[in-house]
Amino acid sequence: MDKIKMGVVGLGQRGKGITKDVLVKNGDIVITALCDVYEDRITECAEIVKKENGNEPKGTLNYRDLISKELIDAVYIATSWETHIPVAIDFLNAGIPVALEVGGSLDIKELWELVDAWEKTKTPFMFMENCCYGKDELLGTQMARKGVFGEIVHCSGAYAHDLREEVATGKEKRHYRLNHYISENCENYPTHELGPIAKLLNINRGNRMVSLVSVASKAAGMRDYVKKNSDKLENKELQGEIFNQGDIVDTIITCENGETIRMCLDTTLPRSYDRAFTVRGTNGYYTQTLNYVFIDGDEEAFQTIEHNMKNINNAVKYEEEYLPEFWKKITKEEIEAGHGGMDAFEFRGFVSALKNKKEMPIDVYDAAAWMCITALSSESIKNNGAPVQIPDFTRGAYKTRKPKDVFPI
Amino acid sequence: MDKIKMGVVGLGQRGKGITKDVLVKNGDIVITALCDVYEDRITECAEIVKKENGNEPKGTLNYRDLISKELIDAVYIATSWETHIPVAIDFLNAGIPVALEVGGSLDIKELWELVDAWEKTKTPFMFMENCCYGKDELLGTQMARKGVFGEIVHCSGAYAHDLREEVATGKEKRHYRLNHYISENCENYPTHELGPIAKLLNINRGNRMVSLVSVASKAAGMRDYVKKNSDKLENKELQGEIFNQGDIVDTIITCENGETIRMCLDTTLPRSYDRAFTVRGTNGYYTQTLNYVFIDGDEEAFQTIEHNMKNINNAVKYEEEYLPEFWKKITKEEIEAGHGGMDAFEFRGFVSALKNKKEMPIDVYDAAAWMCITALSSESIKNNGAPVQIPDFTRGAYKTRKPKDVFPI
Repeated sequence: MDKIKMGVVGLGQRGKGITKDVLVKNGDIVITALCDVYEDRITECAEIVKKENGNEPKGTLNYRDLISKELIDAVYIATSWETHIPVAIDFLNAGIPVALEVGGSLDIKELWELVDAWEKTKTPFMFMENCCYGKDELLGTQMARKGVFGEIVHCSGAYAHDLREEVATGKEKRHYRLNHYISENCENYPTHELGPIAKLLNINRGNRMVSLVSVASKAAGMRDYVKKNSDKLENKELQGEIFNQGDIVDTIITCENGETIRMCLDTTLPRSYDRAFTVRGTNGYYTQTLNYVFIDGDEEAFQTIEHNMKNINNAVKYEEEYLPEFWKKITKEEIEAGHGGMDAFEFRGFVSALKNKKEMPIDVYDAAAWMCITALSSESIKNNGAPVQIPDFTRGAYKTRKPKDVFPI
Repeated sequence: MDKIKMGVVGLGQRGKGITKDVLVKNGDIVITALCDVYEDRITECAEIVKKENGNEPKGTLNYRDLISKELIDAVYIATSWETHIPVAIDFLNAGIPVALEVGGSLDIKELWELVDAWEKTKTPFMFMENCCYGKDELLGTQMARKGVFGEIVHCSGAYAHDLREEVATGKEKRHYRLNHYISENCENYPTHELGPIAKLLNINRGNRMVSLVSVASKAAGMRDYVKKNSDKLENKELQGEIFNQGDIVDTIITCENGETIRMCLDTTLPRSYDRAFTVRGTNGYYTQTLNYVFIDGDEEAFQTIEHNMKNINNAVKYEEEYLPEFWKKITKEEIEAGHGGMDAFEFRGFVSALKNKKEMPIDVYDAAAWMCITALSSESIKNNGAPVQIPDFTRGAYKTRKPKDVFPI
């Protein structure tokens, strides 16, 4: 295989960003086809490809036009949450390798269909959870793997990202989240925090998520935002809109091996960004918010809240020993190429596995297990936080599958 | 009323500490009676009183000996979690004002009995939740009261305090937590974080807690601790002990007005201390871990985890405008007198209300609502996180009761 001929389906904010910042800069990839339901997005991305790589990709409004092994060797799918799984299934069934952008799923049935399609075809499939390649997440994970934190007991994380402006002021109400925030109430975006945690806890590989509870606060943030910012709103009718999505959704997952995972969706109140990746063990912990490592026996730390503040960023001391090599060797270009390097790394992971015919670093079972949290949290919230069982998409195979990290790439 | 003649029942770690650091230093109080089930504790505390105040308090092994209006004007009760409520009820029924130390309760019935005893007698009663007088908690609460954070949507907090050594190595297995950690699995100490949050959210005063879910991680911390530290253990038999208490217990409470409260018990894994008091609103937030305030519109903050770290401790800017006066005027003695001032303040609050015949700043309904979380979390954990209804101890009166803060004192 020379360069991988890549199609991109879905050229909204994420699809365009990956095209521009990652795909045209990856020497192993050439973009040969572009698809979106909006013509203007295709034109814009085609210009980017032509300018950066010199070639003119085929453009189409219908993703089925891309289902051709002559046209593409693989497809990256970044369409809306509602559509990306059915689209992925169509490519898998046609034997075209899929890189699937993240999101949650409200439909357990479509996740089983995704798993079925992969099991039937074994077409290479990777779930593109970039945070699995995050520097902080990998540092904490490697330290946990090497036993620094002792027996692992609990992990937590958040998708804490104020999206009010993005969701409310998007062009022509096209934003992929808008309808969700109006109609649904759930942990709508679980994978950024859950992916790295699931890797660390060997979910689907000796461990599995058994059940969850989910509770949502009232929905006040979007209502308040559209009221305060009427001048910014292209879509004035949003001012009368009732948003159903609770501002803070807390979810607690129980794992078969006794660990708990606490997650928080936090996207419609003012705040600074955080993923809050945290791993707790019998010998210490790492927490991303402070980039802070605590090891048992640190007496000074014992009694003061201030200790955390004083020792902020002390995790840098551990990078030399525990950070994966590709993070130590990161180039300026990679740092600039989307989310500080994560996006470039995840595509290197995909390309590497595809070229070398290796198992994908994040597979269809990861995808299904992580995305199903959205549907299950919706059910739990509707029932005042009642526990909901989490399906085992591996059909028992998790018992013998071996742990797998995203590195080396 | 001149000096308040005070009895102290329960002279373990907390009772002794309050006697030594707070009561003998409070000019409005004279300790006239001391009670504990261990003679050595009485002797030790009597010596402290004699040395500091010159008088010799009566000592007794039976708290009923203190039920005498000649002997005491009020009683401070700091016995074990299992006993402090029945003891309090006996004093209330005798018309002797009660200052009740905190803890959780595994018995909803005894909480109703406490409420009944107060309603029947109207004997002054205060729940001594010192964190309601915490500097950080009061700064955040006052900012919320003044509308700085907009509409309040969510609060969170933790009791994050590594107690492994204290629980495992205590003298003669007397530690008040030890049996709990062996036998129970619950949010065993909810009030340090819940008290200040309940005050802020006007629980029992226009709002109420409706239901909760609680999930516990596995219990690995104590087992690991006693294994690693056999040399420190006076009680060698703890090495074979099975501890039932999960290391991390996450609880989410839903309030009638739509806010959620997230709490975390975190006492048996290595970590630095934190209460993590956090209040989130449509216009901003305060969080104690970083002593950090974020107000909507801070563009620089928007996209980076690092922003939090850079702006740590920025809440000091708001102290002049929002911190209650008694915190601004704190003396060196008060800072030194237990938990950085909180303990002195709570007793000033008690004395002030008692002398001036005012409503107590933290009342029996607060006590019952906050302590019941322990019993309810135990039930939820036993049922895999099933939601549990929270009683309304005000029997509907919360609908018309007016908000009440702990200040001024």
